[in-house]
Amino acid sequence: MEQMKGRVTIPTDMDVVNDTVRLAKKWGADAVRDCDGTEFPAELKDAGLKVYATYYTTRKDNDWAREHPQEIQQMYVMTPAYTAFDEELQIPLMKGLHPDMLMLNTRDDITRWWEVIDRSTGTVVPVTDWSFDEAGGQVCVKSVPYHDYTVSFLAYIIWDPVHMYNATINNWEGVEHQMTFDVRQPLTHAFTMKRLEKFIEEHPYVDVLRYTTFFHQFTLIFDELRREKYVDWYGYSASVSPYILEQFEKEAGYPFRPEYIIDQGYYNGQYRIPSKEYMDFIAFQTREVAKIVKEMVEITHEHQKEAMMFLGDHWIGTEPYLEEFAKIGLDAVVGSVGNGATLRLISDIQGVNYTEGRLLPYFFPDTFYEGGDPVKEAKENWVTARRAILRKPVDRIGYGGYLKLALDFPEFVEYVEAVCSEFRQLYENIAGSRPYCAGKVAVLNCWGKMRSWGCHMVHHAIYFPQNYSYAGVIEALSGAPFDVSFISFEDVMQDPDLLRQFDVLINVGDADTAHTGGEWWCNPVISCAVKQFVYEGGGIIGVGEPSAHQANGRFFQLAGVFGVEEERGFTLGYDKYNWEEHPHFIMEDAADGLDFGEGKKNIYALEGAQILAASDRNVQLAVNSFGKGRAVYISGLPYNFTNNRLLHRAVLWSAGQEDRLHCWFSENIHVEAHAYVETGRYCVVNNTDETQNTVIYRGDGSSFALTMEPNQILWYEI
Amino acid sequence: MEQMKGRVTIPTDMDVVNDTVRLAKKWGADAVRDCDGTEFPAELKDAGLKVYATYYTTRKDNDWAREHPQEIQQMYVMTPAYTAFDEELQIPLMKGLHPDMLMLNTRDDITRWWEVIDRSTGTVVPVTDWSFDEAGGQVCVKSVPYHDYTVSFLAYIIWDPVHMYNATINNWEGVEHQMTFDVRQPLTHAFTMKRLEKFIEEHPYVDVLRYTTFFHQFTLIFDELRREKYVDWYGYSASVSPYILEQFEKEAGYPFRPEYIIDQGYYNGQYRIPSKEYMDFIAFQTREVAKIVKEMVEITHEHQKEAMMFLGDHWIGTEPYLEEFAKIGLDAVVGSVGNGATLRLISDIQGVNYTEGRLLPYFFPDTFYEGGDPVKEAKENWVTARRAILRKPVDRIGYGGYLKLALDFPEFVEYVEAVCSEFRQLYENIAGSRPYCAGKVAVLNCWGKMRSWGCHMVHHAIYFPQNYSYAGVIEALSGAPFDVSFISFEDVMQDPDLLRQFDVLINVGDADTAHTGGEWWCNPVISCAVKQFVYEGGGIIGVGEPSAHQANGRFFQLAGVFGVEEERGFTLGYDKYNWEEHPHFIMEDAADGLDFGEGKKNIYALEGAQILAASDRNVQLAVNSFGKGRAVYISGLPYNFTNNRLLHRAVLWSAGQEDRLHCWFSENIHVEAHAYVETGRYCVVNNTDETQNTVIYRGDGSSFALTMEPNQILWYEI
Repeated sequence: MEQMKGRVTIPTDMDVVNDTVRLAKKWGADAVRDCDGTEFPAELKDAGLKVYATYYTTRKDNDWAREHPQEIQQMYVMTPAYTAFDEELQIPLMKGLHPDMLMLNTRDDITRWWEVIDRSTGTVVPVTDWSFDEAGGQVCVKSVPYHDYTVSFLAYIIWDPVHMYNATINNWEGVEHQMTFDVRQPLTHAFTMKRLEKFIEEHPYVDVLRYTTFFHQFTLIFDELRREKYVDWYGYSASVSPYILEQFEKEAGYPFRPEYIIDQGYYNGQYRIPSKEYMDFIAFQTREVAKIVKEMVEITHEHQKEAMMFLGDHWIGTEPYLEEFAKIGLDAVVGSVGNGATLRLISDIQGVNYTEGRLLPYFFPDTFYEGGDPVKEAKENWVTARRAILRKPVDRIGYGGYLKLALDFPEFVEYVEAVCSEFRQLYENIAGSRPYCAGKVAVLNCWGKMRSWGCHMVHHAIYFPQNYSYAGVIEALSGAPFDVSFISFEDVMQDPDLLRQFDVLINVGDADTAHTGGEWWCNPVISCAVKQFVYEGGGIIGVGEPSAHQANGRFFQLAGVFGVEEERGFTLGYDKYNWEEHPHFIMEDAADGLDFGEGKKNIYALEGAQILAASDRNVQLAVNSFGKGRAVYISGLPYNFTNNRLLHRAVLWSAGQEDRLHCWFSENIHVEAHAYVETGRYCVVNNTDETQNTVIYRGDGSSFALTMEPNQILWYEI
Repeated sequence: MEQMKGRVTIPTDMDVVNDTVRLAKKWGADAVRDCDGTEFPAELKDAGLKVYATYYTTRKDNDWAREHPQEIQQMYVMTPAYTAFDEELQIPLMKGLHPDMLMLNTRDDITRWWEVIDRSTGTVVPVTDWSFDEAGGQVCVKSVPYHDYTVSFLAYIIWDPVHMYNATINNWEGVEHQMTFDVRQPLTHAFTMKRLEKFIEEHPYVDVLRYTTFFHQFTLIFDELRREKYVDWYGYSASVSPYILEQFEKEAGYPFRPEYIIDQGYYNGQYRIPSKEYMDFIAFQTREVAKIVKEMVEITHEHQKEAMMFLGDHWIGTEPYLEEFAKIGLDAVVGSVGNGATLRLISDIQGVNYTEGRLLPYFFPDTFYEGGDPVKEAKENWVTARRAILRKPVDRIGYGGYLKLALDFPEFVEYVEAVCSEFRQLYENIAGSRPYCAGKVAVLNCWGKMRSWGCHMVHHAIYFPQNYSYAGVIEALSGAPFDVSFISFEDVMQDPDLLRQFDVLINVGDADTAHTGGEWWCNPVISCAVKQFVYEGGGIIGVGEPSAHQANGRFFQLAGVFGVEEERGFTLGYDKYNWEEHPHFIMEDAADGLDFGEGKKNIYALEGAQILAASDRNVQLAVNSFGKGRAVYISGLPYNFTNNRLLHRAVLWSAGQEDRLHCWFSENIHVEAHAYVETGRYCVVNNTDETQNTVIYRGDGSSFALTMEPNQILWYEI
């Protein structure tokens, strides 16, 4: 039987008390939340709903910040490179930065914590060769003419970037800038624990403290025009201070350098192959942040409240796929669901009691305006997320924003009711069981488990021309019938036999990025482990420029495995005769044509490889055999139904398991089937907003024809 | 007055004696030549025509070759990489090679001259860890499982590749394979001089020995199916033997390694950034070849004959832009004219008395068949070559092939008459004078002068998707009113002030190739010299990925100069706001739209740069200021009239000399003007097969309107 209530959180505000109660009942919500900029209505305290309250550990107390300026949060910033035209060069530090957000830290010893680098040679300029002109806000460098120089410096974050963003976007006038304070530092640390106790005591009706989040904002900088200048959802640049860096030095056993954070101005973005020092720093931060978070969680628990973490904003140091995370003792994680990958990013988290996905659209005026179509957006979001939920459900769903706005859209209100009901049904049917998996797949990159589902993200689920052709693979996997792992090159170094656990490896991205691995492929432990894995029967799928790094006579280090190579001019002298395209198992559901996204130019097939698709003699899709194993090369794979099926078939074929295709399978690519053998149920979902006809294959290979309503999900007994 | 005769060479054969005399008169030819596979008719010996005879120094004497097998020519070949699956690996050496062409050299010490390399680590396998199984034709390597291995070995060239090519293409049956012999080796060296004397004595009617060419074939390998396997018009792999390599070792002062030639299997292709050892080898070969060529030239001269070199085939060691070349004392160079760049490749050669361009089409059945249109091909070839001839003429033109075939095409015969006449007229009008130049341009790459006009070539003038967008720049320059130099990074290292000679630098090609320079840009001497040059007022034009090499926080090392950078994932976190396109002087004749060829994705503009053209936020054309200088970025520039003009304007604008535009200038981009101030003449040429209306500007800025017939050239007095 279907549960009629529960597993749903709705937002509220002072002006929608009755409607909150009404909609909570209609949607079966059992929890209610405030939002940034809303107030919690007293009338709802006893409405039988669990109450969430947002809690900010690092702002909303400017008095404290002002009184402890040395404990305001800091970040490392690098100036652009300036070319010297003479033997002295002035570098203005704040140019391009908003002075309301950042203020130079000259309190700490700048000769220790700042770094001037000659970027023409990559060498550090001795501190005796530069000085700081405080009045001019510039560093004066004794320079070699025509060399380029940068200054890396520490700045205080005197306006919280999220608050600044909200104030700017919403044109808040006369709002005092919320300053930051650093919970990692001694005075603020002590203060924070008391502040938390006070908050809890003053909000006795609150059941769940929704931390937003803990201590360190992901990197977010605004320029002089208040425009976003730099953003990295995984950025650690704003998690620094001399106080903690001195601790890092002690733990790491080597001197800290600003360059470990600055990384030539790339700030260790997720595309950069991470240095040992940066990985050390992440590990250090994670451990240290976890310690203090644990204190806060304990205080929360002492007051019989739950501690919920928002996956975003000030979440640096609490990446949930790092080992320390599970030890913190958090009750829950909540995050925004942009697509299937971000759903799995939440639902796969271990070490919490439950996870919650905030579905789209937020009840904001950008969607809920007269003539707007929030139902359309909601359907897309739900159907996209549902694929992933059916593989690994979050435990709850919820909505955010201004409930009042939704009230004017009765169709939307009806649709949300249906979603909530559908979610409860599927949650009950899955009942914590593991869905049928047709194989074990591992995504191999420099980040591995720590960036599970989040690889290829720059800002949360944001499209870039440079990432959609690769993120599409992760999105497809989020709802695919495979057991998906994310492993790192370091994992393979530690244990080359690790690969034996998997049926298929995937390496996806551009050359010399952390996603494909770059120079890691010149490490014979890595290349041999992967070659052995395939040779002995494993499958491998490479997308984009897999294993690519120019060395030892090839660009694709696994050219011999994939059977393809990239023409970079160096092999133009070699005649290429393998251009024929072949039909193949992998392509059998791609009659409508394939979309390789950005694709790749200049890929050619080696002797023996089979081209499946090429455009103007640029191979887009090819397969190859290597020993008992098989390899698939794909130039790019944006997420769509055809590509999703292509990847499904590629996984099965490369693993030599084509015969597993017709097992919990829909002939029509717009429909998917998921089986939960333990609970004796399976479902069939129509992932489109149109009626679909299909044939469904059960686990024993038997089949039946089926016509499905738009977006429909049907449940069956096995 | 127009000369009625001279400067033209025609081919002949036994069956066209009368027609040769008739056409020689009609075309004003003053020289006649035999071809490969033709005989010289005795009747023509006294026809008043200069007689050229092809002469082959390295083949057409199989008896000698057979009797001196140790002096058969050799080449270095690398096997593909083979993956070991066990602790022993067998690598077949001749797989993929035609056994009629190559035969393993086991005569010399294979432990010294062969090399087995572990390509997973880049290390040499000790000779104690491999052995050669002569019966099996394979090397047995003591291997580490899953490592990749290659064998570099020496093979005798038992069938001359050009003869093999001709035999294969023309389906010659029963023709004895012409073996090669190596003039560099002592016995053949001595024999060659006698053989040459003998040839000259037996052919007293010959005036010009047309050497085809000297000793070393450019790299050309055929596979088991007699298909071309590898070709590099500049390749030195077939110029080796233990005999000369021992000399090289002595001169270089360090031990020779096969890897210097093998280069990871890339054979030092022209896209590879050349190693010091390879440059040493070229220099050594050039000097040593020059010595022996000089002997042959002296013998030729002693017999009152001229020595003409064919620019191609066995020309390795006589690259005409190397210093030694002028010292050889050759009388002439003749080469095939595929386009403007190949014309300049011939006509710019110094140190010979005259140059000759073989125009297209060759009188071969592929063009001269019933229904064929040789006039069309001839017009295209002539009009394309003429642009370059007007900048720097060859001294003669000529045709090749079977004269008989041309006789059936009277229109063609007429057209050639017109071409010959036009050529003589322009040669007389130019009279060795220097045409007006609007600026001094230097193409900067790893090869510099030695590969003048030939950079971006893989096989002579052959199109590749990877080269046409860059070769287009060289083609445009071949007929542009600029004084063009080719300089190398090494030149700049030797003398950074060298750059002061030029108005504009051009760096064109893909990242990390010899054409753009790769790691050279991390050498501050180079980067500073170029930045200083621009800062002080010089112009720079970058095409493709100029100055690109990933290091020190940037990909384009001159990002600050060009004002553009390439997004490789590392700067996705940086917001980019400069997307507006601007009109510009450079684009003023590009109303029909620009073709950037392959173009580039992911180029974005930095603050301050001006985008002139972009597609889907991929910058294709942008300009920037740097100090007093200016920079132009172009993503690709295949040769066409619009792009030719774009480059013309880009040169002038970047040099700050826009005011020089209306000087010997045609408003219509299909027409060009060239002025020869010394001789008091200028010409206007219509480069198209259509009537063109234009306005012509003289040197003083005065102008007149003009309508031109298709392909017309008009001469005026200044």
